[in-house]
Amino acid sequence: MAGPTIAFLVFDGLTPLDFVGPFEVLSRLPGAFTRIVSPTGGDILAAGGRLRIGADVALDEIDAADVLVVPGGPGARTLMHDDAVTAWVARVAAGARFTASVCTGALILGGAGLLNGREAATHWAARPLLAEFGATPVARRIVDHGSVLTAAGVSAGIDLALLLAAHIAGEDVARAIQLRIEYDPQPPFDSGAVEKASPAIRDLAATVG
Amino acid sequence: MAGPTIAFLVFDGLTPLDFVGPFEVLSRLPGAFTRIVSPTGGDILAAGGRLRIGADVALDEIDAADVLVVPGGPGARTLMHDDAVTAWVARVAAGARFTASVCTGALILGGAGLLNGREAATHWAARPLLAEFGATPVARRIVDHGSVLTAAGVSAGIDLALLLAAHIAGEDVARAIQLRIEYDPQPPFDSGAVEKASPAIRDLAATVG
Repeated sequence: MAGPTIAFLVFDGLTPLDFVGPFEVLSRLPGAFTRIVSPTGGDILAAGGRLRIGADVALDEIDAADVLVVPGGPGARTLMHDDAVTAWVARVAAGARFTASVCTGALILGGAGLLNGREAATHWAARPLLAEFGATPVARRIVDHGSVLTAAGVSAGIDLALLLAAHIAGEDVARAIQLRIEYDPQPPFDSGAVEKASPAIRDLAATVG
Repeated sequence: MAGPTIAFLVFDGLTPLDFVGPFEVLSRLPGAFTRIVSPTGGDILAAGGRLRIGADVALDEIDAADVLVVPGGPGARTLMHDDAVTAWVARVAAGARFTASVCTGALILGGAGLLNGREAATHWAARPLLAEFGATPVARRIVDHGSVLTAAGVSAGIDLALLLAAHIAGEDVARAIQLRIEYDPQPPFDSGAVEKASPAIRDLAATVG
C-alpha cells in the first residue's frame, strides 16, 4: 500500500523548526512521500537568511497531497496576503485529508479561508492577527478540527505532528516515532508559554525573534 | 560587544531535527554569528536524501568558533571514523568555549577523542557504540562536562541548546528564547524514552528510523 504524500510549504522568512519539527516526525511514517514546496521551486532562506533549504517542487507543479503542512515565520505575514499562495493552499487543502499549520502558518491558512468562524492556535505573539480571517485565537497547544489542525508557536509543530501521525498510521506508529526521535522533553526552564513567563521575560522575548 | 560564533557541522545522512533544534535556539542569541559547516562546503542531504540543506563554509575554511555543535544521524557512523572530520572537530573544540553533540553526534565527538573516560549521552539505540571511544553511555537527557556537553537523541538537542544559551547569555535570555519558540512541550503520548516504551513500541521504532 502506498503511504501518504505529505506536502510542506516552505518560503523565505520561514522559522526552520516550524518546518523541520513536523518533517522529522511525518517523514518517518511508513511509505511517506514528502514534497517540499516553495513558491518558485527554488531554495528558500530561513531564519533571517541564515539557513538555506532546498525545495522539491514549485507551487504550480503540485496540486494535491494527502497531508499539507504550513509552517510559519516572519515570511508568513507576507504570504497570508499573497493570492497565488493562499489560492494554492486552499486548492490543496480542499483535496487533502489533513491540513495543518504551525505557528504563524495559521495566518496563511486564514488567508486561504480555512479558519473562518473557527478557533485556531498560533504563535502567542500573533494571536490578534487571526481576527482578520474570522478566526478566534485560543491559548491551546493544538486545535484539532478534524481535517484542519493548527498548532501554537514553533516547537508546537512536533506535538501536532505526533498527533497527526497517530491519526494517519495509528497510535503505535506515532509512539514508535516519538521513541525514535527520543521526544521525552526536559526543558531546563519553564517559560515556554506566555501565560507562564514573567513580564520581563516577555519583553526580552521580543528581542530574540 | 560581538556575540558568539556558533559552528554547526552538517553532513549527508544528518537527522534534520538534531541540527535545526539547536540552530533555532542558538541562532537567537544576541549577536550570534552562525556558521553552517559541511565537509566540502556544498549542500548536504539530510533525512535519507529527502531534505537538502545549504552550508556556509567547508571544514578547511574555518578553524575556530566559540561554540561547536555536532548533530547526529545515520551519517555520523561514517564520520566518526573520518580522520579529516574528527581532526577538525578536535581542533575547533580545543579552542571553543563549548562543544556540544546531539544524538549520534556523540560518536563524532568520540572519534575526536573528546569523550575518553567520560560519561556521555547519545541516542538510546547507539549507546553501545560509545564504548569504542572510551566513553560510558548514560541514560540521561544531557550530560554537561562544562566545555563538552552531550545530549540524548534528536529532540534532546532543544533542551541542550536552552541550557547552553543560559551558559552563554544568562538564564533570562534562555527563558526568553524558550518563550519565543513556545517550547512548552505537550507530547500527546509518553513513549519518548526507551525506559518508558513497551517492547512492541521498541521493535516498531526500528522501522521508523
